[in-house]
Amino acid sequence: MKATAVAPSNIAWVKYWGRRNDALVLPTNSNFSMTFGPTKTNPEGMHTTTTVEFSDAFDMDTVIIDGKEADRNAYDRTVAHLNIIRGLAGVNYRFKMESRNNFPYGAGFASSASGGAAEAYAASEALGLRLSKEKLSVLARLSGSGSAARSVHGGWVMWQKGEREDGEDSHAIRVFDENHWPDVRVLATVLDDKVKGVRSAEGMKESVESCPLYALWPSTAESDLKRLIPAIERRDFSTAGLIAEYNCRALHAIMLATREGPKDRPLIYFAPETIALMKQVHAWRAEGLEAYYTIDAGPNVKVICMKEDEATLTDRLKSLPFVKNVIPTQPGPGARLADEHLF
Amino acid sequence: MKATAVAPSNIAWVKYWGRRNDALVLPTNSNFSMTFGPTKTNPEGMHTTTTVEFSDAFDMDTVIIDGKEADRNAYDRTVAHLNIIRGLAGVNYRFKMESRNNFPYGAGFASSASGGAAEAYAASEALGLRLSKEKLSVLARLSGSGSAARSVHGGWVMWQKGEREDGEDSHAIRVFDENHWPDVRVLATVLDDKVKGVRSAEGMKESVESCPLYALWPSTAESDLKRLIPAIERRDFSTAGLIAEYNCRALHAIMLATREGPKDRPLIYFAPETIALMKQVHAWRAEGLEAYYTIDAGPNVKVICMKEDEATLTDRLKSLPFVKNVIPTQPGPGARLADEHLF
Repeated sequence: MKATAVAPSNIAWVKYWGRRNDALVLPTNSNFSMTFGPTKTNPEGMHTTTTVEFSDAFDMDTVIIDGKEADRNAYDRTVAHLNIIRGLAGVNYRFKMESRNNFPYGAGFASSASGGAAEAYAASEALGLRLSKEKLSVLARLSGSGSAARSVHGGWVMWQKGEREDGEDSHAIRVFDENHWPDVRVLATVLDDKVKGVRSAEGMKESVESCPLYALWPSTAESDLKRLIPAIERRDFSTAGLIAEYNCRALHAIMLATREGPKDRPLIYFAPETIALMKQVHAWRAEGLEAYYTIDAGPNVKVICMKEDEATLTDRLKSLPFVKNVIPTQPGPGARLADEHLF
Repeated sequence: MKATAVAPSNIAWVKYWGRRNDALVLPTNSNFSMTFGPTKTNPEGMHTTTTVEFSDAFDMDTVIIDGKEADRNAYDRTVAHLNIIRGLAGVNYRFKMESRNNFPYGAGFASSASGGAAEAYAASEALGLRLSKEKLSVLARLSGSGSAARSVHGGWVMWQKGEREDGEDSHAIRVFDENHWPDVRVLATVLDDKVKGVRSAEGMKESVESCPLYALWPSTAESDLKRLIPAIERRDFSTAGLIAEYNCRALHAIMLATREGPKDRPLIYFAPETIALMKQVHAWRAEGLEAYYTIDAGPNVKVICMKEDEATLTDRLKSLPFVKNVIPTQPGPGARLADEHLF
């Protein structure tokens, strides 16, 4: 009763921010992402590898992340998630889970997305459940990090918000596979690898409750999504890049206008360097180097470009004094099972 | 036919952003400001001094700002404004106007507010019009910088948006005079004295037209205003400061989410240092030093505090490497006529 899964991270081009049902992780808007795959210069990609073993010999649940015992919050989330999977299989064995990220943990690189998908896949496989990709996506969603629902699939992925109250239709679907438009690059630019202050799940709850502009977020995102999908279908980089950037700025506007953050702190994910890099991308674009950006709930910036500009942009990004690292990605495959285990 | 007026700058605690009528400068929401007055350590305050002379000996209109010929935009705006005043007086003399700011021009310190009010006052006085404060406020509004309407009055000032189509009821009123709560301090913190890229009047037009969240701005501002006025009436600093900060963040959210800025640039007034200072103020507040911030359409931050914390905060602000200057202000009197002329 042991299995290992590898799941990629992903980056939303139309963001997920806010739940209509907190316990079931049902979003207020459909959203859309590119699954992170390896590139020539980054053959590893950005992913989480997770091994889960169930055994009646274990007398407690164990959670190891990046070689260390998980903190209380991460432990509780994992146990709650695997309780759902134990329930589906009708067993109550204790588990041991070990998870490794090949990129910075908790700094806006959606390690919770790849982690949640890998966890759902490894655990359900270890218990012999043979789930469809759709059911696996529902289960990944229930990891607590909704965007995990998208990491199940490769390529260009839409998490459809669904209509059902039980959430069974709120899962991701693959809209275009990873071979549809392989020349797109997302350069994940590390400005600051400190763990961010407020988890997305908490932050979006604060926005729903106390952002006076929030009511217009779901329709803004749905409208961006409706324009983005045809742009990606026809491989129209200028339109798709600009929509991604617009949607990211609308997301951060919602965060900025959120009134009560946890512990009376505001919900500002930008670092000073985030603003500097956004302005830099605009300046490059003004001089004809076509690049856009998108930013999740953290300080780091993902620079979107086409393959032909990857080398130039990587050099320019690395020459900025506040950039620590640049990790290239392109559309890649979804979660998969692995033969070798972590323990 | 010559007069000189001195008008203070002001800082909105509930912002003005967007016009329902562009030509008449009619705002979409009522807004509220503190008029900048001198303090013990800054006996000059922040103001514009403007002399206007009309004469049939002049063969052209002349506009001098801070010792230099105004650029084309500023010149055209001044001529358009003084055309209205010439029309009211029924004359067509050419004018000479000279204006001096005792603070950085065009960097988010509302030099257009003090400038527009001083211009309206000096010009109408030079032509012998004896206008009520309300009528003067309407005329200052028509300078093109709506916030000039507020600089006519001292203390705590509301620019009521009005209901009339001709705009005659869209003027400022003094809600509390400058002696109501003299212990409030606004520390205007200069981070960057470069002239900003996009004038407020242009920026707000872009927001109205292309910010998908804009429709919720007017009601957000009106609701903030309704809670702010009683807080100022009872001198409740914690409530008033927080509302000002909340409203400022909502304003910058609207700017951030604005899609099409002029020349395809985004409407981001923040500098990296703006974010750094916002986070610093939150950190100070978390340790018990009560301060809030508000930020206009520029990179500079105004730190709001009470008199007893002014010295501590000034020291701390000046010790930050990216702070160039700190200019203290407190509630002060409105525009006035002066005896001495600039030329």
